[in-house]
Amino acid sequence: MARWAPGASDRLQRAAMELFAEDGFEATTVAGIAGRAGVTERTFFRHFADKREVLFAGEEQLEAVFVDAIADAPADASLAGLLVAALDAGGRALQDVRGRDFARLRNEIITANEQLRERELLKLAKLSHAVAAALVARGVADVTACLAGELVVLVFKTAFDRWIAPDETRDLVDLQREGLAAISDLTRAETV
Amino acid sequence: MARWAPGASDRLQRAAMELFAEDGFEATTVAGIAGRAGVTERTFFRHFADKREVLFAGEEQLEAVFVDAIADAPADASLAGLLVAALDAGGRALQDVRGRDFARLRNEIITANEQLRERELLKLAKLSHAVAAALVARGVADVTACLAGELVVLVFKTAFDRWIAPDETRDLVDLQREGLAAISDLTRAETV
Repeated sequence: MARWAPGASDRLQRAAMELFAEDGFEATTVAGIAGRAGVTERTFFRHFADKREVLFAGEEQLEAVFVDAIADAPADASLAGLLVAALDAGGRALQDVRGRDFARLRNEIITANEQLRERELLKLAKLSHAVAAALVARGVADVTACLAGELVVLVFKTAFDRWIAPDETRDLVDLQREGLAAISDLTRAETV
Repeated sequence: MARWAPGASDRLQRAAMELFAEDGFEATTVAGIAGRAGVTERTFFRHFADKREVLFAGEEQLEAVFVDAIADAPADASLAGLLVAALDAGGRALQDVRGRDFARLRNEIITANEQLRERELLKLAKLSHAVAAALVARGVADVTACLAGELVVLVFKTAFDRWIAPDETRDLVDLQREGLAAISDLTRAETV
């Protein structure tokens, strides 16, 4: 019996992703996922609330990487420095833990389903609030922290979309740094 | 008989907002909205697909204001200038057409309901894509246009949230300009 085997969560996730890609998200059942992973449905529900949440596993951990990078930065870090630290850490974690091919497959599944697209947008909104809260905890004013949280998500999201594009080979952290620089240019001209 | 009276759409919207605020979004029915507005359900459905869409009426028109401002800007406008033109026009339209009190009430209703929050996020994602497409139509490169579309929505959204805060008296356009300048500062330090 492999019910308590380590790695059941990973096997369930892999099985779910395969079935979502083969049959579509709607047509895939928890029973089908558990069957392909070689575990019981009961085991599935020990790891995930439902089939949708398989696609959002790791959400809190990724959020924590952004938040911890801000909390752990040197006391004299500039605000811009805190944003770079959060983005570098979050981008690095995402590409190292799951990798680009996983991200591409997951993105295809989510893009094909409006409910999943809306859930993904909510995930990013939560990340923005978490980053803002981490900045407020370091003494940044609410208004600035809110704006910075949104900015971090914007840079992350647009760099992520480029990172998973076909033929893209640069790493996520570099694309994020490039995005920050581009935003600086986009807003700088008008304030001169 | 007032079935064809001009302004049925406005009356229905006002009735719906009152009922959403009094009874909550879930408990409000189309029959109740039509009844309070003094029209038939049939008239309601000539104006709105369902009760949710009452809250998103005007979405396409607002998007068009942003898009038209970009399309109609002088040929020699800088990219940063296009973003300011779009934000100024969109912000001005929003505050002039509906006003701050309407926006506050609508925001309270949406914040109280997860389905409405997700729908609102999707609306902003659509606005971002529309702005990006308008920029591409003016010859801006895809990657830059996408980033700029997201930036416009970020500035709009964060300024909007400040605009509807209790006791806030500055106008939306000013808050958007302040947000653009703050983002310039947030990203500038790191590129020096």
